[in-house]
Amino acid sequence: MKKKLGAGTALYPMPVTLVGATVNGKPNYLTIAHVGIMDHARVSLSMGKSHYTNDGIRENGTFSVNIAPERLVKETDYCGLVSGRKADKARLFDTFYGELETAPMIEGCPINMECRLMQTVDMPKHDVFIGEVVQAYCDEECFEGDVVDFSKVHPILFAMYDRSYFKLGERFAPAWNVGKELMT
Amino acid sequence: MKKKLGAGTALYPMPVTLVGATVNGKPNYLTIAHVGIMDHARVSLSMGKSHYTNDGIRENGTFSVNIAPERLVKETDYCGLVSGRKADKARLFDTFYGELETAPMIEGCPINMECRLMQTVDMPKHDVFIGEVVQAYCDEECFEGDVVDFSKVHPILFAMYDRSYFKLGERFAPAWNVGKELMT
Repeated sequence: MKKKLGAGTALYPMPVTLVGATVNGKPNYLTIAHVGIMDHARVSLSMGKSHYTNDGIRENGTFSVNIAPERLVKETDYCGLVSGRKADKARLFDTFYGELETAPMIEGCPINMECRLMQTVDMPKHDVFIGEVVQAYCDEECFEGDVVDFSKVHPILFAMYDRSYFKLGERFAPAWNVGKELMT
Repeated sequence: MKKKLGAGTALYPMPVTLVGATVNGKPNYLTIAHVGIMDHARVSLSMGKSHYTNDGIRENGTFSVNIAPERLVKETDYCGLVSGRKADKARLFDTFYGELETAPMIEGCPINMECRLMQTVDMPKHDVFIGEVVQAYCDEECFEGDVVDFSKVHPILFAMYDRSYFKLGERFAPAWNVGKELMT
């Protein structure tokens, strides 16, 4: 039996990210799980229009997306509870920079993407920032040979309904492969 | 040590969905994991411009997003391997409809969203369809009390790098809560 959930997104779980930006000349980080992939080179962030970070992204035309790992769950949650207007959240992390001078990234996050703002999609209460990934980074320890192994990334996954963070579970099937047996 | 991954998205894992549309008068399903949340009422799908389904979405202005569960991993993978031009993929599923007559949904998927096309963002090789969720549905068995419990949904998660499907792991922390102890 199907039950109606109403007219809202049920597209979960989503990876929890820490979005980095330079705001008023300083690095700031904000927790965002309403993210997306626009194509192989571009990502999107849905950010409530009242957030402190939005002006910094617009001003500099840059931001970063850092995949939050399990071990930083408290810091990650905190960065969604407190505004950069009121607290210096960057003090919690070691910041590094890549090619873009205004896209601070978090050393302790296993995967980082520095992005150039490409387009903003205007939603009623949200700015959706679309960024082109200029360079992505991954901790050496998360590789298996030449390939990133997500079971070593230990991302945090978010579901809105039960307001919970989940771990990533086991790898259980190869993509573009396990369905081949139905091709008859 | 950080290693460079190049100029591409590393925003994984993402939930694997089966996108439903009416194409040439018939229901069709396509596997898409490059999805996103635009705001609380809207979702996005990044679909290569050559896909068979894109014309159906444009023609009818509707589509569905169905969260693929572990038990349908073979069918889900198959729907990403074979085009609707060549095979009737809807035969694999029991289809149902909600309020929109041209947004077929999959009974066997625990969560379904019927969407009205709102906007299309043009990427070089992809149409990004933004849809407003008209109604979302969830299997009764996936509730814990009045709330959807994602550990009962058993979604499939996708990471591009190792071309793998993952399970969802355990719930390990409450959102908007676990970081409170850093608020001092």
